[in-house]
Amino acid sequence: MSIELINHISKHISIDRKDLESVAGFFTPVQAKKKENLVTAGLHCKYNYFVVKGCMRMYFITEHGSEQTIQFALENWWMTDLEAFNKGKTASLSVQTIESCELLAIDKPSMEKMLATHPQMERYFRMIYERAYSASLFRVQFIFQFSKEDSYLHFSNAYPNFVQRIPQKILASFLGFTPEYLSELRRKRVKIGLRGKAGKDRKS
Amino acid sequence: MSIELINHISKHISIDRKDLESVAGFFTPVQAKKKENLVTAGLHCKYNYFVVKGCMRMYFITEHGSEQTIQFALENWWMTDLEAFNKGKTASLSVQTIESCELLAIDKPSMEKMLATHPQMERYFRMIYERAYSASLFRVQFIFQFSKEDSYLHFSNAYPNFVQRIPQKILASFLGFTPEYLSELRRKRVKIGLRGKAGKDRKS
Repeated sequence: MSIELINHISKHISIDRKDLESVAGFFTPVQAKKKENLVTAGLHCKYNYFVVKGCMRMYFITEHGSEQTIQFALENWWMTDLEAFNKGKTASLSVQTIESCELLAIDKPSMEKMLATHPQMERYFRMIYERAYSASLFRVQFIFQFSKEDSYLHFSNAYPNFVQRIPQKILASFLGFTPEYLSELRRKRVKIGLRGKAGKDRKS
Repeated sequence: MSIELINHISKHISIDRKDLESVAGFFTPVQAKKKENLVTAGLHCKYNYFVVKGCMRMYFITEHGSEQTIQFALENWWMTDLEAFNKGKTASLSVQTIESCELLAIDKPSMEKMLATHPQMERYFRMIYERAYSASLFRVQFIFQFSKEDSYLHFSNAYPNFVQRIPQKILASFLGFTPEYLSELRRKRVKIGLRGKAGKDRKS
């Protein structure tokens, strides 16, 4: 098992090395190319994924046929269509890599067996889904709290490195506006930045 | 402990009666009046609540000073500002009863002690937060998927009894529009309903 998942589990719960090695046996390493669909709406959702390296997104197809991104997963995050994965239903959400990714995959029977063999892992996943739930609530708050322009400013200030990793079209979709509007905002910010700099230059 | 929580835990995990009775000792029954704030943004978030009877909402105050409802909790749901509860921070979200409620409250030290004494409860809460996370993701999907009118139609068709329990102003806030717009939609639906009925009468 990757050192990343070992570290992540050890950060959350007390578990000895022997158990960690046994937990490792339930996972399958997956190398995924950029823009590869790991979960596809309408198809059986077989795996839950832990991101060792790379970046993924969750999206759905709107009634107008466009892709609406609703969540991202970076290193140390889990991603799947959880309801479909748990209930053995076809997915209603899709998961796609944004960059080439190193992942660890686990299917539902292995997950259940792993949790039965190592019940202390229930605590780890309880914490993981508490965090995911809180993040999702924050996302809803974010949608209602900010205007389109403010949501971009808040997002790019809070996660400057992450914003550099995501294609403009996907970031625009996540924030709920068109790529053209995002380009306009970015141009505006550069302009304001230059003006601010010029102002400072004049003062000095 | 209320039979409702016993049933809810037993529905999710295997746990014997003796352990359930011990789990019960960690909870405090709370009777809350209608419109009582149980968690208040800006104050310490002390308890997590299980709804035995009644209905609550989660909201935050927008920059314009209005209340934005982002989630509801009916019977058998848990509600608190989870991040604040877990991290011992002041709340950024508020929780308020919509009806008079029978609740079970647990504070953080009791929760940790209960989980340490009955680690099988980790599985219960893992499932609870998986479900809460899935519901929250569905909420985000809902916001992006539907127009204002469609979101009301979908919500009222999916949860007809629930819609009757919530004040119009709060439902409008949850769906992201003004109470006036919601009244207009309801009038429009009644009108269409009556027209539909008249059409059928003519045919018969």
